This record gives sequence, structure tokens and C-alpha cells, in this order.
Amino acid sequence: MMKAVCLLSGGMDSSTLAYLARDMGFDLYAVHFNYGQRTESRERLAAATIAGLLDAEEFLEVDLGYLSRIGASSLTDHSMVVDGFVEGDRIPNTYVPFRNANLLAIATSFAEARGAEAIFIGVQSQDYSGYPDCRPTFIEAFQKAVDLGTKDDTRITIRAPFINMNKSDIIRKGLELGVPYQHTWSCYRNEERACGECGACHYRREAFSRLGLRDPIQYEKE
Amino acid sequence: MMKAVCLLSGGMDSSTLAYLARDMGFDLYAVHFNYGQRTESRERLAAATIAGLLDAEEFLEVDLGYLSRIGASSLTDHSMVVDGFVEGDRIPNTYVPFRNANLLAIATSFAEARGAEAIFIGVQSQDYSGYPDCRPTFIEAFQKAVDLGTKDDTRITIRAPFINMNKSDIIRKGLELGVPYQHTWSCYRNEERACGECGACHYRREAFSRLGLRDPIQYEKE
Repeated sequence: MMKAVCLLSGGMDSSTLAYLARDMGFDLYAVHFNYGQRTESRERLAAATIAGLLDAEEFLEVDLGYLSRIGASSLTDHSMVVDGFVEGDRIPNTYVPFRNANLLAIATSFAEARGAEAIFIGVQSQDYSGYPDCRPTFIEAFQKAVDLGTKDDTRITIRAPFINMNKSDIIRKGLELGVPYQHTWSCYRNEERACGECGACHYRREAFSRLGLRDPIQYEKE
Repeated sequence: MMKAVCLLSGGMDSSTLAYLARDMGFDLYAVHFNYGQRTESRERLAAATIAGLLDAEEFLEVDLGYLSRIGASSLTDHSMVVDGFVEGDRIPNTYVPFRNANLLAIATSFAEARGAEAIFIGVQSQDYSGYPDCRPTFIEAFQKAVDLGTKDDTRITIRAPFINMNKSDIIRKGLELGVPYQHTWSCYRNEERACGECGACHYRREAFSRLGLRDPIQYEKE
């Protein structure tokens, strides 16, 4: 059986990703990151639920508490106010410096230790409009670092199947795969009812509404 | 003042590196990693001492406990026996999968958050004979990932000044800079008296003896 490490935050994209990897025939090694973000417990619950539903071989939880101490992001520095949806070129203050490289490095260590041949990461086109570590060119550069920085007989491919998809495309795909979106969590601010206003909520709601669908999670204001 | 993040394990190479960066005029942001290695407390003490002697601006300790859970290395899996000095092409079982990418990713997050323009890492030629993530080509590939994965106005250069030096060259340089080698620690096995036999001890003793010098730390067998 082929093995894949899957980065599973518990959000809409990564949950769809896990369903897709399973559908492609991979045994799943899920890795979930706690980096001191405000909504960590809710995200963790979502990720564990999805991993359980998909019979993952392992659910590795990694604490990146150092990212809070490094700071410089409203996701991890709770004295900063989380940016709402940001238009244009400015990088939102939710940017955690070089976060995806941290996540991919860990995923690669995990994959090499388990003999997995793929790493699934859910970055997609709307992310890389803002975050530099979501750009396709970054993923390609990191792949090169993986090729050179692991054993010569290790072959690990980073798969980012959503990189050219928008969130509506992802939901459409996820509904085909039976992803239970009611168990996923995206909001950056709240853990009970989603705020509906942060960047993550903004894109999520917009994606469902473009498809003429209602998001199954609850929002503070409908 | 220029700022540099310096990876400081507390060993001979990274301690010399910190003295070199200071000598080049950088303010130091030291980062020390605990990844469940056997000799962590001794290494931590060494690193903290060196950072203190050099008036580092920050001493960031990062716990990479997940590397123990990922396993596959005798450094972090205490049920495995640490390889002695390994000749030839085989990678010693002290290899921690893709470790240096984990370390460099964290260092880059730290550097970007603090506005540091350099990251100093002490990899050197004897390392990359065995460990794939010490090869110059890996460091170059990672630099590219840093350039593409950070903000467009961030400029961070990975400096590996020892990459073409052997340990004797490093000690010679360190003695010019006044590095107090009695406060550094290299042994992979012991915390009181160095074992003298693991790969780290082997290279360290050999380097001092090539210079006709006595290593100031204590060994089990002299």
C-alpha cells in the first residue's frame, strides 16, 4: 500500500485533501500542527475527526509553540488584532513567517522515517495571492531541497493538488468525495460559532455561496 | 547593527561559528534545539554559556520533541545503540531524517520576524560525507526556498562559513577568536565525561590531536 503524509489542519482545504489522498489509494499519516493559533482546540478536534473517519495509520500532533515566541503574526501573538479580509497586495497580519517551510520540513522527516512516497499539502491559489510560502515557485524550490536533503534512495514527492484551484473548485471536488464539511473548521477568531468576517471565513462563505450552497457550520451572523 | 540568527548546539563547530559571527559585527540571535537527543542537558548548558559570553540579544530554545516521536534515529530513539565512528559511505544511525531543514526553517522564521539578514549554520565537510542534509547543494536549495518563501522585501542569507573546512581548520580559527572550548560539548552518548568513541568524539579528538593540542574537556579514557 502506498503511504502519504497529509498536512491536516482541520480546515476545509486540508480535509478535502485527506479525502482525495485516501481516494487515490494512499494509507494516511496525518500530521496536525498546533502553533499557538487562537482557534487551536477547535481545529484539533476537526483534524482528529477527519483522520478518524479516514482510518489514518497515525495522527501525529506537533507543537510549534516556538512560533508564538517568535511572534510577528496576529495568529500567534494574541495582543494583535486579526486582520479582516484584506484586498489587494498587502500581506495580511495573519502571515506566520515562513510557516509552510516549517510544516513541510516536519512532514518530510515524518515521510522519510515511515517510508512514505508523498506529502499532501492543501495550499491553493487564493492563499498565494497573499502568503509568499504558498506560491507554486516556493513549493518547487522546497521539493528540490527535499530531493537533496534526504537519503539518496528516498523519493518523496510534494503534492499540492489544489494549487491551481479556488475554494469553490475544492468544495465541488470534496462533495464528490463525501467530505463532511460540518466537521471542518476554518475561522481564525472563534471556536464556537465562526465569526464570518476574518479572511478564512470570508473565502469559505464566498466559496459555498458561489456554488449556491449553504455552509453547514454555524456563523455568528448569518 | 546587523543582526544574525546563529544555530547554537553548544558543540565545537557552532560555538566557533557564534564567535565568528560576533567578530564579523553581528548582533546575535541564538537558537538552540532540543530534539530529545541523549545529551540534551549538557548541550543546552554549553549553548547557554556561549550565548551568555557573547552577549546574545536572545537565546531562543526550541523543543523539537516530535522528532523523537517520528524516530528512526539513534540520537532520538533511546532503544537504538548509537553507532560508533562509521567509515565509508554508510549513513550513521545518528542521522535524524531531514533534521537540518527543520532547523533552518525555524531559523528563517526567527530571522524574518526579527529583521535579521543572516543565518549562521555550522555544517562542515566532514558532516556531509554522511548526512545528506549537510551537503552544500542542499544548503543552496534551501536558500532558494528561503528567497521564494519569505516576503518580497525580506533578504536573508544562509551562511555556512565552515562548509569547506575540516574540524582542525575550525579549531585553528576558533583559537584565534578566543573560543573557550572547555565550555563546549560534542559527545553523543555521555553528559559527564565524553565517551571518546562515538562519531562526534572521534572527529573532535582527531582534530585537536592533528594540531598537536589537547582537547580541554574530559574523556572517560584518555
